[in-house]
Amino acid sequence: MIKVGIVGATGYTGEELIKILIKHPHVRLTYLAAKIDKEEPIDKIFPHFKNRLDLKCEIFDIEKAISRADLFLLALPHTVSVKIAPLFLNHKKKVIDLSADYRFQDTGVYEKWYKVKHGDKTNLKKAVYGLPELYREKIKKADFVANPGCYPTAAALGIIPSLVSGIINPDSVIIDAKSGVTGAGRKASIDFFYSEINEGVKAYKIDTHQHMPEINQVLSSVADKKVDVTFCPHLIPMNRGILETIYMKLNKKINYAKVLEIYKKFFKLEPFVRIVENDAYSTKSVAGTNFCDIGLKVNEDKGLLIVVSAIDNLLKGASGQAVQNMNIMCGFPEESGLL
Amino acid sequence: MIKVGIVGATGYTGEELIKILIKHPHVRLTYLAAKIDKEEPIDKIFPHFKNRLDLKCEIFDIEKAISRADLFLLALPHTVSVKIAPLFLNHKKKVIDLSADYRFQDTGVYEKWYKVKHGDKTNLKKAVYGLPELYREKIKKADFVANPGCYPTAAALGIIPSLVSGIINPDSVIIDAKSGVTGAGRKASIDFFYSEINEGVKAYKIDTHQHMPEINQVLSSVADKKVDVTFCPHLIPMNRGILETIYMKLNKKINYAKVLEIYKKFFKLEPFVRIVENDAYSTKSVAGTNFCDIGLKVNEDKGLLIVVSAIDNLLKGASGQAVQNMNIMCGFPEESGLL
Amino acid sequence: MIKVGIVGATGYTGEELIKILIKHPHVRLTYLAAKIDKEEPIDKIFPHFKNRLDLKCEIFDIEKAISRADLFLLALPHTVSVKIAPLFLNHKKKVIDLSADYRFQDTGVYEKWYKVKHGDKTNLKKAVYGLPELYREKIKKADFVANPGCYPTAAALGIIPSLVSGIINPDSVIIDAKSGVTGAGRKASIDFFYSEINEGVKAYKIDTHQHMPEINQVLSSVADKKVDVTFCPHLIPMNRGILETIYMKLNKKINYAKVLEIYKKFFKLEPFVRIVENDAYSTKSVAGTNFCDIGLKVNEDKGLLIVVSAIDNLLKGASGQAVQNMNIMCGFPEESGLL
Amino acid sequence: MIKVGIVGATGYTGEELIKILIKHPHVRLTYLAAKIDKEEPIDKIFPHFKNRLDLKCEIFDIEKAISRADLFLLALPHTVSVKIAPLFLNHKKKVIDLSADYRFQDTGVYEKWYKVKHGDKTNLKKAVYGLPELYREKIKKADFVANPGCYPTAAALGIIPSLVSGIINPDSVIIDAKSGVTGAGRKASIDFFYSEINEGVKAYKIDTHQHMPEINQVLSSVADKKVDVTFCPHLIPMNRGILETIYMKLNKKINYAKVLEIYKKFFKLEPFVRIVENDAYSTKSVAGTNFCDIGLKVNEDKGLLIVVSAIDNLLKGASGQAVQNMNIMCGFPEESGLL
Repeated sequence: MIKVGIVGATGYTGEELIKILIKHPHVRLTYLAAKIDKEEPIDKIFPHFKNRLDLKCEIFDIEKAISRADLFLLALPHTVSVKIAPLFLNHKKKVIDLSADYRFQDTGVYEKWYKVKHGDKTNLKKAVYGLPELYREKIKKADFVANPGCYPTAAALGIIPSLVSGIINPDSVIIDAKSGVTGAGRKASIDFFYSEINEGVKAYKIDTHQHMPEINQVLSSVADKKVDVTFCPHLIPMNRGILETIYMKLNKKINYAKVLEIYKKFFKLEPFVRIVENDAYSTKSVAGTNFCDIGLKVNEDKGLLIVVSAIDNLLKGASGQAVQNMNIMCGFPEESGLL
Repeated sequence: MIKVGIVGATGYTGEELIKILIKHPHVRLTYLAAKIDKEEPIDKIFPHFKNRLDLKCEIFDIEKAISRADLFLLALPHTVSVKIAPLFLNHKKKVIDLSADYRFQDTGVYEKWYKVKHGDKTNLKKAVYGLPELYREKIKKADFVANPGCYPTAAALGIIPSLVSGIINPDSVIIDAKSGVTGAGRKASIDFFYSEINEGVKAYKIDTHQHMPEINQVLSSVADKKVDVTFCPHLIPMNRGILETIYMKLNKKINYAKVLEIYKKFFKLEPFVRIVENDAYSTKSVAGTNFCDIGLKVNEDKGLLIVVSAIDNLLKGASGQAVQNMNIMCGFPEESGLL
Repeated sequence: MIKVGIVGATGYTGEELIKILIKHPHVRLTYLAAKIDKEEPIDKIFPHFKNRLDLKCEIFDIEKAISRADLFLLALPHTVSVKIAPLFLNHKKKVIDLSADYRFQDTGVYEKWYKVKHGDKTNLKKAVYGLPELYREKIKKADFVANPGCYPTAAALGIIPSLVSGIINPDSVIIDAKSGVTGAGRKASIDFFYSEINEGVKAYKIDTHQHMPEINQVLSSVADKKVDVTFCPHLIPMNRGILETIYMKLNKKINYAKVLEIYKKFFKLEPFVRIVENDAYSTKSVAGTNFCDIGLKVNEDKGLLIVVSAIDNLLKGASGQAVQNMNIMCGFPEESGLL
Repeated sequence: MIKVGIVGATGYTGEELIKILIKHPHVRLTYLAAKIDKEEPIDKIFPHFKNRLDLKCEIFDIEKAISRADLFLLALPHTVSVKIAPLFLNHKKKVIDLSADYRFQDTGVYEKWYKVKHGDKTNLKKAVYGLPELYREKIKKADFVANPGCYPTAAALGIIPSLVSGIINPDSVIIDAKSGVTGAGRKASIDFFYSEINEGVKAYKIDTHQHMPEINQVLSSVADKKVDVTFCPHLIPMNRGILETIYMKLNKKINYAKVLEIYKKFFKLEPFVRIVENDAYSTKSVAGTNFCDIGLKVNEDKGLLIVVSAIDNLLKGASGQAVQNMNIMCGFPEESGLL
C-alpha cells in the first residue's frame, strides 16, 4: 500500500486518475492539488465523487505535498510540469508526468514544437518514456516516468511490430487519426463549445501536430534509423476515444495470416494489447478500458498494410497508462486497478 | 428593397440572421459589425459563407453604420444593446433588438433579474414587444421592437389561448423547458465544453431563470392580472431546439376536442404556429424553421391540460422572429425569407 | 462465492450485468444465454469483453442452465420472463427478473397496460418488488425479486420521503422525465436510428406510459391510499441517464432546510442515495454509478416543492439495482461490485 | 416550370429532395410515392412538412405517375431502381436515378460488388454519370442521369485536378473517409441504433466498400488508364457530412502555391466547388449546402499532397447534386433552389 498524490486534479486526466485510484487495491489517494482559487472538497468540483472520496483539492504546496505521499502523478499542462517535477525529484519522490515536458530526449525537438525553452535537462536524462510494451524493464527501475501522448501510444503500438519485423517501408507510414474532444484537455475555448463540435468532423494541424515528432522519436528509436511519418489528426464529436488508421507500404510479398502472426507474437504477453479480427473496428470496444485494440488488413496486390489501432484517450492514452506505469514501478501486478 | 445592418454578427443569432437575410427577397445586407479586434471578411469568421456573401465584418462605428443601412438588427448581449440602440434611434433608424434590454416595461423587474441599472427609459417606452401573434398591429407601426426571449416565445404561444379563453387556473402553470446549447450564446466557458454537455441532461436555474419574469409579464398583460408561473429549464445535448412541456390545471370540465378547437381558432390566421395532433412531439419538426408547433393532451379525470410547445431557439426563438418582425414593420409579406 | 447465470445476455441490461459481475468479488459468472441463432463466445457479440470474459452465450436450455448456476438474472423483454422464471423457481433457484412481468400485484393493471394475459399468478405472489430503500427486509428473505423499472426507481426515491412525511398533496404530483435511449432496449427500430434521435428532444406517451401505473402502485402502497401521478417522459439524445423533475404541492408552510432534513433523514443509511445541494443537477454525476442523486427546491410563496432525481438508467435503473438486490438476497455487503 | 415526381419519398434522400423542391423556383412537386402500406399525407410521415406541402405520398403506380409529372427523381435502394427506371424511360420521361444501379458502365463490376445480376443493359448505355464538374455537356443533353454516390463525389472532386494535371502518381491514392450516419440510408438496423453509434468512431468495409470501384471508374475514365485507389470509410456520430482526407504521392517537385493554382483554375467556373485556405477543414462549412470544399496541404520533403474534401452527403453527395443535374438537364440556372 503506497500513498499517492495527484497534481492537476481538476482536468480530465486528473479526474480519470482519481476514478482509477479510488478502486486501486494497493494505493491510498492522500493528496490532490490544482490551480484553483481556494481549496475545496473534490466532490464540489466533480459532484460524482460525493460519498466516494472524502478529500480536499488543495492549492499546490510542495512542503505539504511531500509530507503526504510517496508517489506523485502530474496531470499538468505542458510547460508547467517542468517547474513542478524537479521539486518532487529533489525530495526523492517517485514521479509520473503526463505532460509532454519530459518525453523528448532531444530538447531541440521539444523547443521547436512546443515553442518554449526546456529548463530542466538534468532530470530529462533520468526520465524513462513510459510505454510498457517497449520499455517495461527500464520502467521497473525508474523513479521518473514521462507518460506518452495519446496519439503516439496508439501509433507506436500499431506500427512497431511491422517496423521491427522489417515488413514495411518506414518512409511510407501515413497515420490518419480520429480523436474525441477530451484529448484537448479541459479548458474554456470557443473552439470546443458544444455546438462548434457537434455535427461536424474536422481535420486540423495537418502534418503539423506536436505529437508527430513524438511518434517519430519512438519509431526511430525502435528502427534505429530516422523515421518520418505523415500524421493527420481529426476531431470527432464524441467525448472519448482515438482510432488511428495507419497505411504502410509492405517491403515484400506477405499475406494476412503472416502479418497477424507477427502482431500476435509481438504482443503475446502484453496484458493490455489485443489483436482483434473483426469486420469493423470501433473505439467502443476499448472505451472505459486500458486496452489497445489492433486490427489488420493486407492488400497483397497493392502491397499495402492497413492497421487500425484504437484506445481510450483518457486511459491507455493517458491516465490508465500512467497507472500501468505506476504498477510496474512499484512492483504491483500490472493490471491492478485497471480491469 | 431595404438596406439592413447587423450589429453583433459573430454570435449564433447574428450568424442565423445573415443566413436568412442573404436569401431574403426584399433585403440587401449592407453592414455587419461585431466586437472584434480587426475587421475581417465574414467568410473568415464563418467559412460556410464563402462565395455566398462578400461583406466585411467591421468594428462598430455609428457614423459608418447609419450611412450604410436603413434598419438595424442588434444581436448583442444584454446590457450592451442599451448603449447601442439609442444611437440608431436618434438617427431615425428602425431597430430590432434581440437582447433583453428593452423587453421589460418595468425597469425594476429588469434591474432585479439582470442585476444592472437600466440607462434608457426614454426609448424603453417606445419599444414594442415583438411577439407578432399578440402585438402584430403595434409592430406594424413600430420603429423599435424588442424581440422576445426564446423560452418566453414558446411559453407564451403554448399558454395564451388557454389563458384568454379562461379554461385554466393562471396560478397553476408549470413550465418544464428543455433547450439546446446555442440558447446560451457563443462564448468560451468550460460549462459548455463539448464533453461537459454531451451524454448528460441538466436542470439549472430552477425557478430562478431570468426568462421567468418575462413570461410572467407577457402572460399578466394578456390575463390582465398578475400571473406567476413555475419555470424550470434543462440543458440538452443538442445544438438547436426548445421543447416546453406545460402543465396547467383546468378550471372546468372540458374535453380534448374543445381545447383543440380553442387553440386552432386562436392561431387560425397565424403563418408560423401549427397545432399538431401526433403521438409524440419533437423539436425535429421545427428545426431549421420559424414554426412553433403546439401539441395538446387533456386528462379530464385529473382536470389537467398538458401543452407541448416546440420551436427552433435560433429561429422562432430569436433570429427568425426578428425577421418576421422586420417583415411586419416594413410591410413585406410576413413569410418573406422564412419559408 | 456463488455461481450466477444471465438469461438475455445480449441486450443492454444483460451487457451491463456482465460488466458488473466480472468484477464482483463474490460471484462467478457461469452461464449466459440469449435468443440467438447459434451459440457464440460473448466477445464475438460484445468485442469489448475480449480477454475479460471467456464464456459462451448459449441458446437457452433450462436443463443446462440449472446445472450451471445457483442464481439467475433474467434480462428479458416483458412477456418472455413470465415463461422463463417459473422454470427456475420450480428448481429452487433464486431469480431476479428485470422485466415488468412480476412487478404488478394486481394482474388487472398489468394486463391493461401491457396488453397481454398474465400466465403465472402463482409465482407473482412470491415476487418481492426489489426497491431496497423500501423493501430491504423482504428482499433479504426473498428467492424471487421483481426488479423495478427505471422511471419508477427515480420517481419513487424522489417522492417517497415527501409522501411518508405528509408534507405534499399526493394528488398534485407531476413527473417530467428525461431519458437516454438505452432505456428503450436494444432492438432494431427506425425510431431509434441515430439520426432520428440526434439533434432532437421528444415528448412521447404523454400521460400514457406503462411505467405510470408502476409508479402509482409503489406510491399508493407507501401512502396507504390511491395515488395517481401525472407522468410525461421525454427522449434525450444521449446513451444513458434519467433525470426526473418532480413538481409537488406542499400541504403546509415548510422551508428548504426542513425539507432537506426530511430527505437526509429518510436516506441516512442508504448506500446508494445521495441528497445533493448544487445549483444544477445533471445525470453526469450518476453516470456509470449505482447512485440516485436527489436535489430539492422549495418555493414557499407558491407552496411548491421541486425535486430533481437522477439515475443511470442501466445501473440504479436496471442492472445495478439487480445486483444490489442479489447482494441483499445472498447476504453479501450491499455495495459489492457496485463501487 | 416543370412538374416533378419523387419515387422513394420516405427515405433521407427523398425527404431532402422534397425540402429543396418546395422552394425551387422552376419546379412544381406533383407526385410522391414510396413503398408504404397505404397512402398518407407527406406531413404524417415527416411532420415538419405540415403547412409547407399539401401532397400525399402514394403507393407507386406507373400509370398515375406518368400522368402527373414530366421528370422523376428515383430515391430508391440499389436493385430497385433497375426495375422502376425503365418504366419511366419507356414513356419518354426524364429520370434522375440516385441509386447505384446505372452508375457502372461495366455490368461485371456492378454485379461483382452489388452481388446481383443487372437486368437493364439497354438503358444503362443511355445513362450519363451525373458529376456536373466533369460531364456537364453530356448532362445537358441527357434524359437519364445516374447520380453519383456520396463518397465518390467527394473523392472525384478532390483528386481529379491532381490527376489530370499529372502531378500525382495515380497508384498512390489513399482515401480515408469519414461519414455521418444518414449515408447508410433510413432503415431499421441494430447497427444504427443511437447508442451503437454515439460515442464511437468505426472503421468498416476497409478496402472493400462498394463505392471504391465507382471511384476507380470515374478516375480511370479521366486518367485514361486503370486507377486503383485505397479506400477506407469510417462512421462518425453525426447526422450529416463527409470528410475525405486524401493522401497522394507527388510525381515531381511542386509547391503549395502551384498546387493551389491548379485546383483554383480547374474549378474556376464551378458554382459548387470552393477551394479553401484554412488551418482546419470541417464538414460544418458545407452542412446544409450543395458545396464541396477542398483544402490542400503539400509536404515537399516527403513529396506528398494531402487533400481534404468535404461535402454534405445528403446534398452534394445525393439530393443536392440530383437537383443540380435536373437544373442542367432542364436548362434552369444551375444554382436554382440550391443557394
